[in-house]
Amino acid sequence: MTRRELSQLIRNKESFLCIGLDSDWERLPSHLKKEDDPVFTFNKQIIDHTHDLAIAYKPNIAFYESLGPRGWESLAKTLEYLEPLRDELFLIADAKRADIGNTSKQYARTFFDKNAAGLDFDAVTVAPYMGSDSVEPFLEYDNKWVILLGLTSNKGAFDFQMQKVWSEEQDSRDFLYKTVIRESQHWADENKMMYVAGATKSYLLNEIREILPDHFLLIPGIGAQGGSIEEVANHGLNEDGGIIINASRSIIFASGGRDFAASARAKALEMQQIMKNIINRYL
Amino acid sequence: MTRRELSQLIRNKESFLCIGLDSDWERLPSHLKKEDDPVFTFNKQIIDHTHDLAIAYKPNIAFYESLGPRGWESLAKTLEYLEPLRDELFLIADAKRADIGNTSKQYARTFFDKNAAGLDFDAVTVAPYMGSDSVEPFLEYDNKWVILLGLTSNKGAFDFQMQKVWSEEQDSRDFLYKTVIRESQHWADENKMMYVAGATKSYLLNEIREILPDHFLLIPGIGAQGGSIEEVANHGLNEDGGIIINASRSIIFASGGRDFAASARAKALEMQQIMKNIINRYL
Repeated sequence: MTRRELSQLIRNKESFLCIGLDSDWERLPSHLKKEDDPVFTFNKQIIDHTHDLAIAYKPNIAFYESLGPRGWESLAKTLEYLEPLRDELFLIADAKRADIGNTSKQYARTFFDKNAAGLDFDAVTVAPYMGSDSVEPFLEYDNKWVILLGLTSNKGAFDFQMQKVWSEEQDSRDFLYKTVIRESQHWADENKMMYVAGATKSYLLNEIREILPDHFLLIPGIGAQGGSIEEVANHGLNEDGGIIINASRSIIFASGGRDFAASARAKALEMQQIMKNIINRYL
Repeated sequence: MTRRELSQLIRNKESFLCIGLDSDWERLPSHLKKEDDPVFTFNKQIIDHTHDLAIAYKPNIAFYESLGPRGWESLAKTLEYLEPLRDELFLIADAKRADIGNTSKQYARTFFDKNAAGLDFDAVTVAPYMGSDSVEPFLEYDNKWVILLGLTSNKGAFDFQMQKVWSEEQDSRDFLYKTVIRESQHWADENKMMYVAGATKSYLLNEIREILPDHFLLIPGIGAQGGSIEEVANHGLNEDGGIIINASRSIIFASGGRDFAASARAKALEMQQIMKNIINRYL
């Protein structure tokens, strides 16, 4: 999916909602656990009830990986199920991978090459610590995206991302996450790369937008983690839309009972209505 | 495995060799591809021919993950096969994972809890960018280790790890990788945490040892990536041994033919003999 197509999707669906399919086994409604593949059944029902409200789904890979081979099967079946909806959905593997080039190449294959692990995501989240050659293999795929961790939404973001980095050239100090954002722009442009920008510090979105006027930002931390959609839109929106706001637990586990999918829809609709208002006002 | 046990293992086996089971499908000997599980068959033969020479095995998860569910099955079978040798081998999942706490907990389960994904590693490599709460879930397991990325062996290490970080308190500038090493010592001590220290810049090992006199260091970059065992030992050894030197491709793909396992043994033996000399001289 291109940047233009993604932008069009936001206008068409009046939404910039991404639903995190963090389908934690422990939290699945108990009546589903008798099913043959409870995780896939859960995802299917969430998708059926929400796909018109969301522009993206984002399974966090940890919740599948921790189930062993059957977790990867549930994930592949979920992608397969989404196949007929590919034109209207952007699919993100939240994997936070990266390794030396030779190895990152395998991670890129995992998430982008259907012949490898049966998966064919549009984008994968990538960790920046190991630098350019750990990210490049992900950039070699046509029409696929890297979403690089810039500023994350957890408290540990303060440990290193908010450390001040000294630039000899510019005789200045800047936060590490800004150095990451600035430096990584040499690797690919706004048609191939997005950034994770944690919403729980939405006042920082202004500063990120200053550096990245044209990039899409993937913004976690709404809902369970406490961020507000209006505030994020206020600071993050650009003329393409330019933001993908993720909510996971607050939508998919809105109810833990038999009404889980309807409750997820209600919660997603509530968020989408807020987004619709914003989109109609500003885009 | 405790630090003392690991140290004893080094003395007993006269080795600090870790063999990277980066069993890249593309590079497996062609005669194995007719087998039911080529990756497992390959690993089994490598293990049979090298386990007396190595103190550790380190599968890089990317090479399994990129094969989909069957890759995870090959990995679980490899761990199962190693089970009778657990007292004499330290098993490292080279996964470079980390996410917000809620999610890192799932990654920790994946690699440490046999009931989750059928895996029961001694250690897992973890990326530091997301900070303390992304690492803590891995530290909650008794008798398990976190191997945090300090300085990696790839060229991209220069992009961020070698950036100078400003410390207001100390009115000083230091490389990011040193800040990571210093700060993360508040999270756990040398009985629970090790660090990746890339050997291709072995002169930097001196500086890492100054900060971490007692920690074990996992040192990649020997062999295919160009580091030398003597130089690494020279700069990295402490009184416990304190180093685990990894070689992957240079051992397991020493030959691509039917003699692959014997060739792997020859290459591992060559490295172990160098280590034996060093251990007899200094430990």
